[in-house]
Amino acid sequence: MATILVLHGPNLNLLGTREPEIYGRETLADIDQKLMTLCLERGHHLHFLQSNAEYELIDRIHDARREGVNFIVINPAAFTHTSVALRDALAGVGIPFVECHLSNVFSREAFRHHSYFSDIAVGVVCGFGSQSYELALQAAFNYLDKNKPEQKHS
Amino acid sequence: MATILVLHGPNLNLLGTREPEIYGRETLADIDQKLMTLCLERGHHLHFLQSNAEYELIDRIHDARREGVNFIVINPAAFTHTSVALRDALAGVGIPFVECHLSNVFSREAFRHHSYFSDIAVGVVCGFGSQSYELALQAAFNYLDKNKPEQKHS
Amino acid sequence: MATILVLHGPNLNLLGTREPEIYGRETLADIDQKLMTLCLERGHHLHFLQSNAEYELIDRIHDARREGVNFIVINPAAFTHTSVALRDALAGVGIPFVECHLSNVFSREAFRHHSYFSDIAVGVVCGFGSQSYELALQAAFNYLDKNKPEQKHS
Amino acid sequence: MATILVLHGPNLNLLGTREPEIYGRETLADIDQKLMTLCLERGHHLHFLQSNAEYELIDRIHDARREGVNFIVINPAAFTHTSVALRDALAGVGIPFVECHLSNVFSREAFRHHSYFSDIAVGVVCGFGSQSYELALQAAFNYLDKNKPEQKHS
Amino acid sequence: MATILVLHGPNLNLLGTREPEIYGRETLADIDQKLMTLCLERGHHLHFLQSNAEYELIDRIHDARREGVNFIVINPAAFTHTSVALRDALAGVGIPFVECHLSNVFSREAFRHHSYFSDIAVGVVCGFGSQSYELALQAAFNYLDKNKPEQKHS
Amino acid sequence: MATILVLHGPNLNLLGTREPEIYGRETLADIDQKLMTLCLERGHHLHFLQSNAEYELIDRIHDARREGVNFIVINPAAFTHTSVALRDALAGVGIPFVECHLSNVFSREAFRHHSYFSDIAVGVVCGFGSQSYELALQAAFNYLDKNKPEQKHS
Amino acid sequence: MATILVLHGPNLNLLGTREPEIYGRETLADIDQKLMTLCLERGHHLHFLQSNAEYELIDRIHDARREGVNFIVINPAAFTHTSVALRDALAGVGIPFVECHLSNVFSREAFRHHSYFSDIAVGVVCGFGSQSYELALQAAFNYLDKNKPEQKHS
Amino acid sequence: MATILVLHGPNLNLLGTREPEIYGRETLADIDQKLMTLCLERGHHLHFLQSNAEYELIDRIHDARREGVNFIVINPAAFTHTSVALRDALAGVGIPFVECHLSNVFSREAFRHHSYFSDIAVGVVCGFGSQSYELALQAAFNYLDKNKPEQKHS
Amino acid sequence: MATILVLHGPNLNLLGTREPEIYGRETLADIDQKLMTLCLERGHHLHFLQSNAEYELIDRIHDARREGVNFIVINPAAFTHTSVALRDALAGVGIPFVECHLSNVFSREAFRHHSYFSDIAVGVVCGFGSQSYELALQAAFNYLDKNKPEQKHS
Amino acid sequence: MATILVLHGPNLNLLGTREPEIYGRETLADIDQKLMTLCLERGHHLHFLQSNAEYELIDRIHDARREGVNFIVINPAAFTHTSVALRDALAGVGIPFVECHLSNVFSREAFRHHSYFSDIAVGVVCGFGSQSYELALQAAFNYLDKNKPEQKHS
Amino acid sequence: MATILVLHGPNLNLLGTREPEIYGRETLADIDQKLMTLCLERGHHLHFLQSNAEYELIDRIHDARREGVNFIVINPAAFTHTSVALRDALAGVGIPFVECHLSNVFSREAFRHHSYFSDIAVGVVCGFGSQSYELALQAAFNYLDKNKPEQKHS
Amino acid sequence: MATILVLHGPNLNLLGTREPEIYGRETLADIDQKLMTLCLERGHHLHFLQSNAEYELIDRIHDARREGVNFIVINPAAFTHTSVALRDALAGVGIPFVECHLSNVFSREAFRHHSYFSDIAVGVVCGFGSQSYELALQAAFNYLDKNKPEQKHS
Repeated sequence: MATILVLHGPNLNLLGTREPEIYGRETLADIDQKLMTLCLERGHHLHFLQSNAEYELIDRIHDARREGVNFIVINPAAFTHTSVALRDALAGVGIPFVECHLSNVFSREAFRHHSYFSDIAVGVVCGFGSQSYELALQAAFNYLDKNKPEQKHS
Repeated sequence: MATILVLHGPNLNLLGTREPEIYGRETLADIDQKLMTLCLERGHHLHFLQSNAEYELIDRIHDARREGVNFIVINPAAFTHTSVALRDALAGVGIPFVECHLSNVFSREAFRHHSYFSDIAVGVVCGFGSQSYELALQAAFNYLDKNKPEQKHS
Repeated sequence: MATILVLHGPNLNLLGTREPEIYGRETLADIDQKLMTLCLERGHHLHFLQSNAEYELIDRIHDARREGVNFIVINPAAFTHTSVALRDALAGVGIPFVECHLSNVFSREAFRHHSYFSDIAVGVVCGFGSQSYELALQAAFNYLDKNKPEQKHS
Repeated sequence: MATILVLHGPNLNLLGTREPEIYGRETLADIDQKLMTLCLERGHHLHFLQSNAEYELIDRIHDARREGVNFIVINPAAFTHTSVALRDALAGVGIPFVECHLSNVFSREAFRHHSYFSDIAVGVVCGFGSQSYELALQAAFNYLDKNKPEQKHS
Repeated sequence: MATILVLHGPNLNLLGTREPEIYGRETLADIDQKLMTLCLERGHHLHFLQSNAEYELIDRIHDARREGVNFIVINPAAFTHTSVALRDALAGVGIPFVECHLSNVFSREAFRHHSYFSDIAVGVVCGFGSQSYELALQAAFNYLDKNKPEQKHS
Repeated sequence: MATILVLHGPNLNLLGTREPEIYGRETLADIDQKLMTLCLERGHHLHFLQSNAEYELIDRIHDARREGVNFIVINPAAFTHTSVALRDALAGVGIPFVECHLSNVFSREAFRHHSYFSDIAVGVVCGFGSQSYELALQAAFNYLDKNKPEQKHS
Repeated sequence: MATILVLHGPNLNLLGTREPEIYGRETLADIDQKLMTLCLERGHHLHFLQSNAEYELIDRIHDARREGVNFIVINPAAFTHTSVALRDALAGVGIPFVECHLSNVFSREAFRHHSYFSDIAVGVVCGFGSQSYELALQAAFNYLDKNKPEQKHS
Repeated sequence: MATILVLHGPNLNLLGTREPEIYGRETLADIDQKLMTLCLERGHHLHFLQSNAEYELIDRIHDARREGVNFIVINPAAFTHTSVALRDALAGVGIPFVECHLSNVFSREAFRHHSYFSDIAVGVVCGFGSQSYELALQAAFNYLDKNKPEQKHS
Repeated sequence: MATILVLHGPNLNLLGTREPEIYGRETLADIDQKLMTLCLERGHHLHFLQSNAEYELIDRIHDARREGVNFIVINPAAFTHTSVALRDALAGVGIPFVECHLSNVFSREAFRHHSYFSDIAVGVVCGFGSQSYELALQAAFNYLDKNKPEQKHS
Repeated sequence: MATILVLHGPNLNLLGTREPEIYGRETLADIDQKLMTLCLERGHHLHFLQSNAEYELIDRIHDARREGVNFIVINPAAFTHTSVALRDALAGVGIPFVECHLSNVFSREAFRHHSYFSDIAVGVVCGFGSQSYELALQAAFNYLDKNKPEQKHS
Repeated sequence: MATILVLHGPNLNLLGTREPEIYGRETLADIDQKLMTLCLERGHHLHFLQSNAEYELIDRIHDARREGVNFIVINPAAFTHTSVALRDALAGVGIPFVECHLSNVFSREAFRHHSYFSDIAVGVVCGFGSQSYELALQAAFNYLDKNKPEQKHS
Repeated sequence: MATILVLHGPNLNLLGTREPEIYGRETLADIDQKLMTLCLERGHHLHFLQSNAEYELIDRIHDARREGVNFIVINPAAFTHTSVALRDALAGVGIPFVECHLSNVFSREAFRHHSYFSDIAVGVVCGFGSQSYELALQAAFNYLDKNKPEQKHS
């Protein structure tokens, strides 16, 4: 049984709140709920954080190490292309992670084609809407099965 | 009658506080006051925010949609060249905006020649000191006249 | 009920046949078997092709349209970075597809960071070994659920 | 009381003459008329020139110095991106100028993102249609107020 | 029955006048004559202009719209690589055009490999000497057959 | 009387078989038929090959030399941008050729703006749909008229 | 006697807390203590701040001017490569500073070879672990000796 | 005693068949014969393949591993600059190889200066005509002497 | 005895007319006078043209061939960096020329470091003020001495 | 007790000999004297060499290995940006070294921002005038304390 | 009366010694003799040095300052494109210099288009064979006339 | 019977003198001895030079012409990537040469992928340790056999 942390980057709190007839009514809370269900089925703990503040995401990653978090699923959103600090936080705590994106970043503006996270991630999933998170979570399950988490305090 | 939000990016709080004999004594409060006067004359509401924190500017933009803000005038300052998150916030809420700068960014360092905002802005004004804000505000007035704001709560 | 085609690019026939103590003993046939099981559970047809010949992959894609294939999962392998012809075949038949990779291409040589497929794919999955195919297949199932395939011959 | 010169670059003579139901019926003459009104209110002289010939614009700028023109508002249009000669003319006569554009050049083709004028201009205004000229003119007024024109022969 | 305009860019007036034993004796007048014959056979009007002055070519394009010219064949010569103003003129009047070149620009200096016209042209013909014009004219005939010109004044 | 070879690159076999109401019903066979008619009128032999396999096109070019083919018209399609081998085949046999394209490659993705063929071709024709082949064939006729083919076996 | 401010950028709070047998047990507190000792010996005041939040570092720099801080030693960590805002804060308050890094940034990833600080710093020290701070502090002492701090309010 | 495979890339079958008075009459068969003689003298087996088809070369390399081939000498010809698939085949089977070229690729077109093979080859030989193969073979002999081939099936 | 043409590009008519106390009082007429004196001493004819119009310079170059001009000294000024048409005119008439500049273009803006003329000029002289013309003229004399002009009409 | 070598690159012999009222009177001999004093205090041997000849610096580095030099402090001056041979000498002898510069190279010409030494140095110090050497020497002391030099001949 | 130093870079000692029927028989000694004559006529001293060693040229420049040399004419030959050390020597002694070249460097390989000297030279002369030196010397005379050399020892 | 010169660039004198258990004990003298043996067998003269000084290599090349050296084998080592002067020396004397390297430069740092020699060499050999020299020498023998050296003074 492992602990997984899901991190949502800036502006993802807007999901589902604007022009629902076009973009759909699925909110970040809906996504988190689906991910929670998947984790419970597998007997894993799940924590969430959405933040528009880079430092809050960094601090949460630092805390993750102290809490013995075993895997991180992160959608860095706009920070994907700009935040070396977030990259360094993930590299610094040494917790394996998957990078995921709702949209297909490769069919958007050129500046979205580069990520500061992909080369140090276990893998990348993008383009499948909220299913990107679910697939990333399945990859996390698989990774944890193959790499049994280190026992803490025992 | 519309509501306009003026956003000042990082370090603009320093305006007018250093070597006034050289840079002038005009502070950000002075600028805000002039913009307020212009808005009152036109019968528009005006809100301000200066912040050195990217997330505060993002949060303010998110709030702007809920409050029915009709137009944003933003001087992203240093974030002009680095913040995809702020760009995404503006694009996410879909509120039209003008980008403005006190200095002529094109006569400064090469890294200041690229903006993450210009291509999705209505227009850009730069190089006229505090008058850049006033011109941007006039552009906002004109835009609002031509694009009558959507009626809220009725 | 839909028909799905899985395409494996050049050199993937080598999988599992070299230094199994290091790279594992899982062969392409093993992967195809797992994907078949997943499809059967969902009531979908599944076809496979591995080829080291670009033209065979192109011809297979052309045939796919005639056969009414509803979705393609493709691991273009080395052709990812060099084959405009394969890209044009996929774009030409208009069948939605997911691009997947066994390894994390972003942590390898710089020439592997560009793909001729990603911008026209539904999405991309990479870095999870053979699980990349499984996740891509799940994305296909989801896509097919949301986009009911056109009825043929009725 | 100062003299201001407004220069319109190539193809701007087409304004308002094509598909008016789409692009509007405002012609260059209409714009010039509005600018004239603004200048008269402020007690300034205003001269105009539109030309498709680079040399005519250069010659006009040379003449401007002899005539004691105090400020130039220029929309170099296509010459923005190609004419070093026009840049050198402006730098050569040493008359302060504002660069303006009807459209937002930053949301158009990549080759329009570079200007041979911006770095030596007082400032830049773009994206506001004919209002770009009006804002540029206001910037001129402000500049002239702050930098009292040199007295000629008196 | 349609009206076609053929434009010859700078230095093309030199054709056939230098070292005829090497470059041939065919002059621009000879080419124009051949094109006229082809047009007469098809019942189309043909107008010509060669100019070394960018503005004359721009002015001629502007006039073309007033005259109801239905198609333009243009060899921009050196302006191919430098004139955004000429591009804007063609885009501004909205008359379909073919770009042609006597020589194969792709086997010459690197700076001749980029054209400011090709992406907005119907098509491009180059490398066939004076026959390039004839082929471009045939493309024009074909285009006009498929896209019946708008009726003017009736 | 000469022998001409027309080569069609990958995916061109799809022509006319998909959404005919949009893309037209003209197939590659239709185009070949039209080209055959033009050749017969001029008393030339015509051979065709479409292939999705690079090696088949290369082999066909090699055979062309043995058969005494006098001119090649080639639409390399996707291979335009990626196949040095095809380029080398054409350069190796020394048969003059024209490069043609159905679409205007310069108004498509940036990677389509470079061709491995143009600099060694007699000339290039693009953007006129199936007429591009016809114009290329006319250029071939003209070339053959001016450069009388070498007599073989006599 | 002067006041010196030492700023530590994001993730430096992790120092000494992970795998001490590999990275050593020296924490940021240990470093700060050593620097304090060095300052006391020289009779200077020393202030510290570590933050993962860009805005806190900016605010601290703004405060530094009000407090009469005479010199800043900054290890911007990941912000070195991304934060124009922090650069502008340092330039805005006009306090001389040295940039230092624990690791040799030039032997790491290419994106770490560029700094937004170096060109406006007094100098740069990198690669010596915690000694980098000590050397930077000695440079500060030397600078202060040569450039006697301005007297405030006396 | 070892087994060596010599691979000739596309268009090399043309060697010696065109304008022999200029390019020489030496054919690929002549080269292969010379290499065979050298191998026989050293007691090694030698296999050859020339192909214009990338997949045939890949398949041959895959077979080489099964056959226990100890060393490969490859002249990838045009595929040098375009074939990641061939590179991956060589890397995938793990057989050491030398890259050789008849001509000096560095004195030809710029696109021939990059090779997808050189960085994973034992070494490179180019510019000596058919002697390049002989020198490559000698390097193979030397390599095999120093790195005694692994014993198979015993 | 030969005929030499001196061409002055755009804005050079401004020479000596602005802030003479700083830039000197030497006008273009003064320079032309000095060059005339030098030519008379050597028994050569000299013609001049300054123009801000690209086409006038092109036309003058075309005329030069008809008049039997033997050498051209050209200061293309701003056209140095932008005018392919002027380059083509010089190349088209085949008259040898020297490129000269008053200022040292290599110590100015980066866009002035590239010239469309230098690679086809006999040589280049820059940085010596009006003496640049005199040195260029001496180079012309030397060239003419070594390459006796072709006899015309005899 | 260790032996340290200080190397000064080209033109550093000019230090202190020109316009002392501006650049100061400190010569290279003065710097060497200060470094000697520091070494004596720590009980280390110190050797110096300044040379304008790349080969002398290379030869000195080669000799250093034979002499058992334990650490090198090098200011490669202009060779920083151009000398792969000096880099290879340092890498070849395997003696740890610090790179230092009198000036802040990052605030000078762009070509000075790249160093052939930094990535293989222990660390870099720049911008502090002659103090850069002293800080580099302190880094050397610290390095030697932590990495006890290998015992020679015992 | 002034002292001028002429420096010839590497390989210039080969002048006139190889294939004189093609390259001419003029040697470096011949050129130096001509320059000496010109200097004597003007009453100036002239010193020469040709060296293939970068350090000898640097040392000679250093000596020049001690000797009171007033102007340098330098043909850096191959060092033009590679020697920052030579550039720094010239900048370090502060003696004005002209850069000259026998050949037109702009019509040669691309790597010869950049010079490390041009931006800090008074001016540049290239392409006129040995006359380039003579023109450079005349520029020196002119410079010295305008900038009277500082009086030494009086 | 011919004379061959072997040149070894900087740092190659270190060969075999450091960590022989790792890099081998083969010294440059050993290599030279092997090459001498090969030459004696073929009846050719052989000269050697290793130098860390660019000028010595240049001077040696100049001397080679006077001595009638027929071929040069050069391993420019670090000068491969930086020395235009050495390139010019080789081009200046017109003696054919082969470039060779001990290591595979293409699998090392990016700056080692460019050579100033390859494009003017007969050919290139790299990656085979000391055998690279032997293969280069064989290429020299072959070249000399095919291109009988010119007879000198007889």
